[in-house]
Amino acid sequence: MPFFCMGRRMTKYEMRQRGAAILIIGDEILSGRTQDTNTATIAKWLGLLGIAVREVRVVPDLQSEIVAAVRVLSARFDYVFTTGGIGPTHDDITADCMAAAFETGISYHPAVFEQLAARYATMNIGPFNEARQRMARIPFGASLIANSLSGAPGFQLGNVFVMAGIPAVMQAMLDDVRGRLASGRPLLSVTVSAYLGEGTIAAGLAQLQNQFPDVPMGSYPFGKDGKFGTSLVARDSDFYRLEHVRTALEGVIRDAGGEVVEV
Amino acid sequence: MPFFCMGRRMTKYEMRQRGAAILIIGDEILSGRTQDTNTATIAKWLGLLGIAVREVRVVPDLQSEIVAAVRVLSARFDYVFTTGGIGPTHDDITADCMAAAFETGISYHPAVFEQLAARYATMNIGPFNEARQRMARIPFGASLIANSLSGAPGFQLGNVFVMAGIPAVMQAMLDDVRGRLASGRPLLSVTVSAYLGEGTIAAGLAQLQNQFPDVPMGSYPFGKDGKFGTSLVARDSDFYRLEHVRTALEGVIRDAGGEVVEV
Repeated sequence: MPFFCMGRRMTKYEMRQRGAAILIIGDEILSGRTQDTNTATIAKWLGLLGIAVREVRVVPDLQSEIVAAVRVLSARFDYVFTTGGIGPTHDDITADCMAAAFETGISYHPAVFEQLAARYATMNIGPFNEARQRMARIPFGASLIANSLSGAPGFQLGNVFVMAGIPAVMQAMLDDVRGRLASGRPLLSVTVSAYLGEGTIAAGLAQLQNQFPDVPMGSYPFGKDGKFGTSLVARDSDFYRLEHVRTALEGVIRDAGGEVVEV
Repeated sequence: MPFFCMGRRMTKYEMRQRGAAILIIGDEILSGRTQDTNTATIAKWLGLLGIAVREVRVVPDLQSEIVAAVRVLSARFDYVFTTGGIGPTHDDITADCMAAAFETGISYHPAVFEQLAARYATMNIGPFNEARQRMARIPFGASLIANSLSGAPGFQLGNVFVMAGIPAVMQAMLDDVRGRLASGRPLLSVTVSAYLGEGTIAAGLAQLQNQFPDVPMGSYPFGKDGKFGTSLVARDSDFYRLEHVRTALEGVIRDAGGEVVEV
C-alpha cells in the first residue's frame, strides 16, 4: 500500500520525540466492557512532572500487536507506560511480549518469587500455585517496579514502564516510577470560560495562538444549566507567560461580546 | 532502529484485518483534561453489529500525526472511526488531515454551506462567520454523515468515518453510519463471577480456553462490599456455543472451590 509505505518511510527520518506514550493492553478496553481511566491518570501525573503524553494506543491481548506497538513507541518517545496483562491468567502475556520486543529472555525472578511465596503463605489469599507463580516472571535486564498494594511487581525494561491494569495498583506503581524520570518544569494550564459559541471566539483565539505559537491553545464546548459555552485552555510551563496569556484570553472573550464566567 | 524497521517490515505482509480501529484526535484527551468516553461507546455499538474493535489510538492536534495514523489504520482494518477536530477553531484540523491522508482536495461543500448558513440565520446562535464556515469544508469524494443534533456534519472518506468529539453529537452521527457497515452476527458475551482470586481460577480457565481456542476468554478482578473476586468473560457470536461455555465457566469456578455469584 503506497500510503502505508509512505507513512513508514517518513518516520525513519524523524528524531525521537520528547515526551511519553501510553500503551493500554487488554481486550476488555477494546470491547468497551471496561472504561479506561488509566490514560487520564497517567497523563495528569506526567503533566505535573513536565512530561507531555504524545500518543496513546490500546491493543488486544495478542503478542504480535503488543510487540509491534512497544517497538514503535519505545523508539519514538522518551518513555512508554503500559498498563494491563501482568496478572496470573492465560491472557496475561505482557511480560513475555516485553521480553520479545526487547529480544531478551524471561524467567522467574528469584527475589520476586520468594516475596510472593511468603505473601501467599501468610495472607490467606489462596495457594501460591503455578498461575500465581507466573507473576514472578520478569524479563532479563529489567528493574522492578514496587507494588505496595498487592505485591506482584511491575518492571522497567529500557524506557518502558510495565504496570498493572487495575487503577489502584497502577497508581501505587507510579509512586515507584517518579524518581526514574527526567522531569521538566510542570506543565501548567489556564482555563477561561464564557457563554459564547466556539465559532464566535474562534477568530480571536486563532489570532492569539499566532502571537504565541509555542503555547498550545484549545477551545472546548461545555453545557451547564441548559446553557452552552466554551472553555479556552492554554498550556505552558512558564507561570508568568501563562498569566499574560490568561489576560489575553479574557480579552478575546470580551472582544467577542462575552464575559468571563466560572464553570 | 532495527526494532522499528522490523515492526514495519512485518506489517507489509499482513493481510488487512477484519474489524475496526478508533482514532481519537485531540490534545485534551492526551493531557488528561478530558476523559475519553467515545471509545467505549463506539466499541459497544460496533459489538452489537458484530464488528470488533482491534486497536485504538489517541493522537494530538498535529497534521503529521493524524495523517500517519489514518493511513496506517485505514490500510490495516475494515473501518476506522475518528472523533474530534471538526469544529470551528484553529485546532480543528481533522478535515484537512483526512484530505491529506487520502491525497484529495478539500473545499466548501455547497449544500453544507447553505444548510449551516440557514441554521445560523434562524437559530440566534451567533453569526455564520469565517470560523463557522470552516465546518462546511469537506474533502472531495467524501459522503456526508448527518448530525441531527447540531447541524455541522461528519463525513466518510473511503473506509474512514469522521465524527465529532462531543459525545452526544458523536452518538447522533453513529445513527447515520449504521447502514453503511457490513455488519456480522452480534458479538455476545457471558460473564460469570465468584469471590475467588484470579490465580485460583487461572489454571481451569486456561484449560477451558484451550478447549475453545476461538472463543476469547478473559478474567477481570473486581471488588465489592470489601470483598475481592473475579469475573470470567467469554465472547462469541454463537448464542448456543456461548451458553455451553457459560456452563463450563461455572464448572471452572466450582472446581476451584467457589460458587457463582451475581455482581
